[in-house]
Amino acid sequence: MVVRVDLMISLDGFATTTDQTLEAPFGEDWPRLVGAYVATRTFRERVFKDTTGAGTTGVDDEYATEYFENVGAEIMGAGMFGLHNFPDDPNWRGWWGDEPPFQVPVFVLTRNPRPSIEMAGGTTFHFLNSTSVDALQQAVRVANGKDVRIGGGPTVVRDYLKAGLVDRLHVAITPILLGRGIRLWDDLRGLEAGYSVKAETAESGTIHVTFQR
Amino acid sequence: MVVRVDLMISLDGFATTTDQTLEAPFGEDWPRLVGAYVATRTFRERVFKDTTGAGTTGVDDEYATEYFENVGAEIMGAGMFGLHNFPDDPNWRGWWGDEPPFQVPVFVLTRNPRPSIEMAGGTTFHFLNSTSVDALQQAVRVANGKDVRIGGGPTVVRDYLKAGLVDRLHVAITPILLGRGIRLWDDLRGLEAGYSVKAETAESGTIHVTFQR
Repeated sequence: MVVRVDLMISLDGFATTTDQTLEAPFGEDWPRLVGAYVATRTFRERVFKDTTGAGTTGVDDEYATEYFENVGAEIMGAGMFGLHNFPDDPNWRGWWGDEPPFQVPVFVLTRNPRPSIEMAGGTTFHFLNSTSVDALQQAVRVANGKDVRIGGGPTVVRDYLKAGLVDRLHVAITPILLGRGIRLWDDLRGLEAGYSVKAETAESGTIHVTFQR
Repeated sequence: MVVRVDLMISLDGFATTTDQTLEAPFGEDWPRLVGAYVATRTFRERVFKDTTGAGTTGVDDEYATEYFENVGAEIMGAGMFGLHNFPDDPNWRGWWGDEPPFQVPVFVLTRNPRPSIEMAGGTTFHFLNSTSVDALQQAVRVANGKDVRIGGGPTVVRDYLKAGLVDRLHVAITPILLGRGIRLWDDLRGLEAGYSVKAETAESGTIHVTFQR
């Protein structure tokens, strides 16, 4: 069991954009940022339910496969779930449709918890007003020996990194410059200590960097 | 003839540190930032005058070799030459000893020009109070068909990048997080347009990213 992070960032370190709308939930740059990942066969199968075998294979697809493997629970911030955009809508059920790709219990960190939401396909959203550590303990318990992913956004990921709670950090760097958004790397001086770091480049140009304890 | 940049940055995008002293002219983090490059056979030969053949070979050394190839002139900022540290010392001759590794005319951009300094081994420092474009024109003229390198620091490099004057940008990313210093990537949104971008990883873990027109 490991605590994992998988994030995509731009070459200038932005993990998400700040111009979110309902039409473009992660901002207008999102498609370019995640394009190589969305193009993989695994992502198409798992998220788009495309069973035709379309999509790229190769290094990006290997990471996409790993992404979905052996995860028993996920933790995300209120912003990633959409609570900053729709704070007053009690019927808001996230950005991912009726059958979200997580297929595990998802703990959403928020100061204003609401009742759990059970979705199709195995995803249940739970809302917690608790510390990072407490949320992780709950997630570890329900993950039942499988990994716990800290899903995002970057601010939540940074909290867990700074607390030393992440065993494996996989960052896929898309070679574009966004120039705006929320940086993953702020205030993480010396993070590499205690990890072995490896990097490899995919056919798409994406640079996969992994910090592994 | 191309206008080139070769820089080393940390994974969080810092191209130089701000805690410069005479003992540590580029700050205490500099050795870790440039360690893989300094370890190459080519760097040892060219900068340390070590002709024993010691040093690493492989991908980093290939880039180190390219670094020194076909450069006819160099442009650098006043800070890189040390003028911010020693503004009142008319005898200051840079950080690189009596025989600097450039071996070409070097144009130092400064609001307070001083007489040119001819060093051993082919390096002459010229001091210019002129615009980026004017300095580049002078450098192109003396380079005589060879490349012109924009040597640094990051602020000067960014000026040339924003002005669209750089044909090839090679960035060697060291997989460490510095958390402080001067960022290369600030305010360069969309730089990748007009370049083809490739990335490869060296045995040392250094990630070499090249923007080529």
